[in-house]
Amino acid sequence: MHHHADPKMHDCITQCWSCRDTCQSSLFNYCLQNGHNAPDHVRVMTDCIQVCQAAADFMTRNSPLHAVMCRACAEICDACANSCETMDDTEMSRCAEICRRCAASCREMASGTI
Amino acid sequence: MHHHADPKMHDCITQCWSCRDTCQSSLFNYCLQNGHNAPDHVRVMTDCIQVCQAAADFMTRNSPLHAVMCRACAEICDACANSCETMDDTEMSRCAEICRRCAASCREMASGTI
Amino acid sequence: MHHHADPKMHDCITQCWSCRDTCQSSLFNYCLQNGHNAPDHVRVMTDCIQVCQAAADFMTRNSPLHAVMCRACAEICDACANSCETMDDTEMSRCAEICRRCAASCREMASGTI
Amino acid sequence: MHHHADPKMHDCITQCWSCRDTCQSSLFNYCLQNGHNAPDHVRVMTDCIQVCQAAADFMTRNSPLHAVMCRACAEICDACANSCETMDDTEMSRCAEICRRCAASCREMASGTI
Repeated sequence: MHHHADPKMHDCITQCWSCRDTCQSSLFNYCLQNGHNAPDHVRVMTDCIQVCQAAADFMTRNSPLHAVMCRACAEICDACANSCETMDDTEMSRCAEICRRCAASCREMASGTI
Repeated sequence: MHHHADPKMHDCITQCWSCRDTCQSSLFNYCLQNGHNAPDHVRVMTDCIQVCQAAADFMTRNSPLHAVMCRACAEICDACANSCETMDDTEMSRCAEICRRCAASCREMASGTI
Repeated sequence: MHHHADPKMHDCITQCWSCRDTCQSSLFNYCLQNGHNAPDHVRVMTDCIQVCQAAADFMTRNSPLHAVMCRACAEICDACANSCETMDDTEMSRCAEICRRCAASCREMASGTI
Repeated sequence: MHHHADPKMHDCITQCWSCRDTCQSSLFNYCLQNGHNAPDHVRVMTDCIQVCQAAADFMTRNSPLHAVMCRACAEICDACANSCETMDDTEMSRCAEICRRCAASCREMASGTI
């Protein structure tokens, strides 16, 4: 269904879902098994999963408030990337990269509208 | 990341996300604008969005309990499809089809494991 | 369990849950049945449900990033209250009041930390 | 707002929220800090958080499908209690108790309606 007219928003939704999926899969199938289980890391990964979903959902609903959530999402994705980058681990580096890309896309959505 | 070894589970995750996305997009960008706003329809669409997400998340986490959620998901997707099919509306028929496909895939996941 | 040392945060969690519960219950059991079903109203109620939950969850997890989500929550609760207040309806006025109280509490959490 | 006529359903919603809150708070503020961080335990706690929320939401929306979700919730709460009980830890025993109470309440809701 072609409800998302704006290609930039469509791309940002895709980034948010990709980031959410990567973080959830990494957390439960990699981090916990490989010693990346410090409370602060598990927390920020969980925060990232939740905010990416919220941002994607706001945009999917074409909410006029999506910029508010995208702004929050950009901040939290960056924090999550910071945590992943401390680990010197290929898988976590890839996760960090996806978080950064999502943050950049969300930042653009937020600045365009607010 | 290649955390999902089982191709059937991977396909079921895809069906759940597709169903969740279609239902959410249809509900907020089509149903509410086109008179498909009876409380029972909005409710079952919302139920479907929530259970598809839960089922996809259980599988993404490789939860040993995913079959329990897939079984619930199959029932609720079928109920949502029933509601969409009463509407004699091309867009809702397409939504119903996606719900049926998700229900079939979830039923298979549930039966294979429990 | 006494994991929440800060009484202000504990109070804010309570406000967020109260707001989320009131919005969800009002939306599905009152608004849809009483003609308050304009897409923009359903959207902002849904946005409010989602952000209140996220803010409550961030605080429940003692996330260092909770202020980011509380700031977003305050903005969205105010927007939801605005929508409810246009309706000249006792039930919706009460919903608006609860949204305003949640917004005030979230604003305080956000400003105290960032 | 008095939208929940049925006192049994109202009680079950309360049990689900209590269980969800206890599991989330225990997981992020106790388990991860005290060595209860095996992937299977973190997974089942996360499953329990998600299904309790879904069951509470279905009932809050007065969904005719709430029994389907309550049935799933009962199974998953029991599995979560099993995991908590293996730990010989006062805090986790209390968590297990709350899971069992929620499971019993959900089972009653499920059997009454299906």
